[in-house]
Amino acid sequence: MGDYSIGVDLGGTNLRIAAVDGDGKLLEKLTLGAEVSRGRDFVITEMCKAIESLRDKFRDKGQLVGIGIGVPGFIDMAAGMVMESPNLPDWKSFPVRDEIEKRLGTRVILENDANAAAMGEKWLGAGREYPHMAMYTLGTGVGGGIVLSGRLWHGVTGMAGELGHFTVYADGHPCGCGSRGCLEQYASATAVVRMSREAIARGESAELERLSHDPLQFTSRSVYNLAVQGEAAAKRVFENVGRALGIGVGAMVNALNLPMYVIGGGASSAWDAFAPAMFEEMKFRSSIYQLTSPDRVGHDKGTIVTRALLGSDAGLYGAARLPMLENFSQTEEGRN
Amino acid sequence: MGDYSIGVDLGGTNLRIAAVDGDGKLLEKLTLGAEVSRGRDFVITEMCKAIESLRDKFRDKGQLVGIGIGVPGFIDMAAGMVMESPNLPDWKSFPVRDEIEKRLGTRVILENDANAAAMGEKWLGAGREYPHMAMYTLGTGVGGGIVLSGRLWHGVTGMAGELGHFTVYADGHPCGCGSRGCLEQYASATAVVRMSREAIARGESAELERLSHDPLQFTSRSVYNLAVQGEAAAKRVFENVGRALGIGVGAMVNALNLPMYVIGGGASSAWDAFAPAMFEEMKFRSSIYQLTSPDRVGHDKGTIVTRALLGSDAGLYGAARLPMLENFSQTEEGRN
Repeated sequence: MGDYSIGVDLGGTNLRIAAVDGDGKLLEKLTLGAEVSRGRDFVITEMCKAIESLRDKFRDKGQLVGIGIGVPGFIDMAAGMVMESPNLPDWKSFPVRDEIEKRLGTRVILENDANAAAMGEKWLGAGREYPHMAMYTLGTGVGGGIVLSGRLWHGVTGMAGELGHFTVYADGHPCGCGSRGCLEQYASATAVVRMSREAIARGESAELERLSHDPLQFTSRSVYNLAVQGEAAAKRVFENVGRALGIGVGAMVNALNLPMYVIGGGASSAWDAFAPAMFEEMKFRSSIYQLTSPDRVGHDKGTIVTRALLGSDAGLYGAARLPMLENFSQTEEGRN
Repeated sequence: MGDYSIGVDLGGTNLRIAAVDGDGKLLEKLTLGAEVSRGRDFVITEMCKAIESLRDKFRDKGQLVGIGIGVPGFIDMAAGMVMESPNLPDWKSFPVRDEIEKRLGTRVILENDANAAAMGEKWLGAGREYPHMAMYTLGTGVGGGIVLSGRLWHGVTGMAGELGHFTVYADGHPCGCGSRGCLEQYASATAVVRMSREAIARGESAELERLSHDPLQFTSRSVYNLAVQGEAAAKRVFENVGRALGIGVGAMVNALNLPMYVIGGGASSAWDAFAPAMFEEMKFRSSIYQLTSPDRVGHDKGTIVTRALLGSDAGLYGAARLPMLENFSQTEEGRN
């Protein structure tokens, strides 16, 4: 099987760990409960145990290139530390990368989870054929990642790709980041539920109101199910998702003129409910998109906006990919 | 003097042409009337005559590396053509680069004027010490340019850097691009005058109204002069400029986490009137800016937003720089 690496995806619910070979073939995947509430040291110990069990298993079969770990939050790439993470408060300013390297004696790359997902889609998913792409991960929040010339673009302090915090409505809904009207307040699964509640409060939908009586059933997926059945208020919720995405993605088209934008994450499964409004809004917001939309210049030359292909595995594959790429990042170039 | 190149800046009023050596030293600058209304062929002939006069003058002193030409509009870099330009309607889909190369027998690079200005500030101005930067040119409109690893980022069809068309107010003032609420509708010299008219219409300022009686005097500069004298409505106009810039630049910080953002163009001379609101808004809009603002991490490590240094010469120097860089652009990499 040759060389392989191990990718780790630390999510809100699960800690997933996979051994992947250089061709992107999955060798084995472990899924553990994340149990983030039991603290940083507990999670790191569980993670290291699982990584060692995989390493032992494949010891005679190939060389472990390294370990890539995707975690939610701002990462200081140079220091290998979590700088800010609402989900991992006790990870802040702790040398995670160095600690795990010390325990395992192997190279470790710590990465933002949405960046890892972007790298996964670049390597094995929708972005395979494109040198440059941006990815939006629609989940509890909206994450982002930018790949330029095959590499993640980290920016000068490793925090680039916060595409969920583009302002789409300047005076819009307050965001956890402290701003207002961020894309994530209109295009995340959380936002779908909030906008549905707002529709209920305006008395727009008896169906949505019925749905809301069972909190476990009142999810972005069930609102989507109403929308595909033609329920007007639920349809409008996803049109709002699409318009906000169109404003956000349109700004990225105007800035970077990339060939590919990938929409992933759980809420992207509602693609057919939000995509028409998204494409319409992109044409309105971006002259570049008007000039380069696939219906004008052909699919092979156009600006492509498309669904992710790897589902929830994008971040896991992307994390595994990181140690395979040569050890290079823009942040290490310094300032000259 | 060694090798030199010739930069051309085709503006709305002037056609300026400069010979510049490899160290950025100006050898000679010619300023002609642009006379765009006399048509493409007239302008190209005047431009070529002026370039030849400079080449003759320096023939015995050094080697002409090539010619860089900055023009307003969308440029197809691969084809060397203007794709769309409101100011140069008859230039569209005409092989400008090849025509000038044929007439002069020298390598020519055609570039968007705001991109050329960004390259000028990168080479000799505010961005000198930084590998990556974005520039905003506040003039009649708002142009933009992005430099990554010392090179202009063109994107896949050469149109990247349209930073003036980021949506800052989704339902805001209609823009010439077809959208609404673009940054350029709040941060250009044109926008300053329009917002002043709106303040007059709301009956907010006798001083602004007096100013407006003489159309020749009613400029962004004279509104600025009122603002620095403390006139409340004029101050609010520039606070609006700053807030819009804060939303737009904040989105770029969130996307790319660059070390430097440069604000240039004529209207940037009102810096002290709009910058406080801009910085305040950036902190509100961007967690990355909060974490990396110079007052938090120090000027040498922080995200720097600063005034351009080269004034109206940025585009001329930047155009001259283009042929000096090796012949490489992201657009030529193709899609793999």
